[in-house]
Amino acid sequence: MKLYTYFRSSAAYRVRIALNLKGLDYEAVPVHLLRDGGEQLQPAYRAVNPAGLLPALDDGAAAIGQSLAIIEYLDETRPQLPLLPADAAGRARVRALALTVAADTHPLGNLRVLKYLTGELKISEEMKLGWQHHWMATGLAALERLLADDARTGRFCHGDTPTLADCCLVPQVFNAQRFQLDLSPYPTIMRIHGACAELPAFQQAHPAQQADAE
Amino acid sequence: MKLYTYFRSSAAYRVRIALNLKGLDYEAVPVHLLRDGGEQLQPAYRAVNPAGLLPALDDGAAAIGQSLAIIEYLDETRPQLPLLPADAAGRARVRALALTVAADTHPLGNLRVLKYLTGELKISEEMKLGWQHHWMATGLAALERLLADDARTGRFCHGDTPTLADCCLVPQVFNAQRFQLDLSPYPTIMRIHGACAELPAFQQAHPAQQADAE
Repeated sequence: MKLYTYFRSSAAYRVRIALNLKGLDYEAVPVHLLRDGGEQLQPAYRAVNPAGLLPALDDGAAAIGQSLAIIEYLDETRPQLPLLPADAAGRARVRALALTVAADTHPLGNLRVLKYLTGELKISEEMKLGWQHHWMATGLAALERLLADDARTGRFCHGDTPTLADCCLVPQVFNAQRFQLDLSPYPTIMRIHGACAELPAFQQAHPAQQADAE
Repeated sequence: MKLYTYFRSSAAYRVRIALNLKGLDYEAVPVHLLRDGGEQLQPAYRAVNPAGLLPALDDGAAAIGQSLAIIEYLDETRPQLPLLPADAAGRARVRALALTVAADTHPLGNLRVLKYLTGELKISEEMKLGWQHHWMATGLAALERLLADDARTGRFCHGDTPTLADCCLVPQVFNAQRFQLDLSPYPTIMRIHGACAELPAFQQAHPAQQADAE
């Protein structure tokens, strides 16, 4: 099983966590987002994922893009150590938490978006950082409310074992820390982040632990 | 079953299509995104969805936010007329197509993002339209490649019956048309859009057909 990955890609980081949590071996194939105008846009990678975005998983049976689709696929085809709860309402909650990061928060701080802001729109570095902070804070505030207001939140986002939601939470906190966002308004998120950080599955998926880390 | 909706919300439009495709009755509860600084941010709606974003579904058993999580929940709890294929690889593909719209394309053209661009960043209306066109074109180009390059594409995004992917494709094309994007580079998307537009489920979910349309 091959995972096309870049050490700092938030979406690839999610899938690395999921693979580790499920105890699945994989070969990491690095794709450099900045080299040659973006290796993910070159024909070699487009043959794997025509969308030209990271990550992609190829297990021989299917080549799949989109981190959340990959994690759902892994959970369906390798059901040991499930990353989604058994009940439909619980699965809906976990998916909604994951999408609060993956659809509402992370896309606005993506590398290509930041490039457009400073390139096409010519905004200053200070305003770019303001943009990053604004959308990370907005997304994390929504996530904090969803977690803090719900009795189903446990040691992790949903109960006492990690789920798809935790696979999304941790890389988003990593991004926020990287850009020095004040995280004190999100105590529930940070408590869960601390619980995740104790587990080898999360530790080994960290950007700094990847073979392509710079 | 109540759906909290706004006629022009792309994410609410997706769920309206899904409900119609599955033949499910629902009560539409309008939440006005522009009135009173956004009704979705007021306490009455926050009690339903603490994230303060549309849509939300409440079927008595669960209150759920996030359009894709809602549609997956409907498909799991009301399995008639499924919106996801039976095989894991097919489900992964449909989810990846849906996320290409819901995570990679639509969040960048959201109302709150456009407000930040003109408000905080003080960019011109012309540059705002350029931003909208750029990200819609980027997202639709990825979607076009994923559809055109794959034999599993049929009359609809995946085979010959509508899926979750079509629930996302149609509202994104509506947005693109609303802002006069040139859609000629996306013949596969537009062919599928035409097939969807023939079905009452899509027609009745259209923004112009909603009770809160302006």
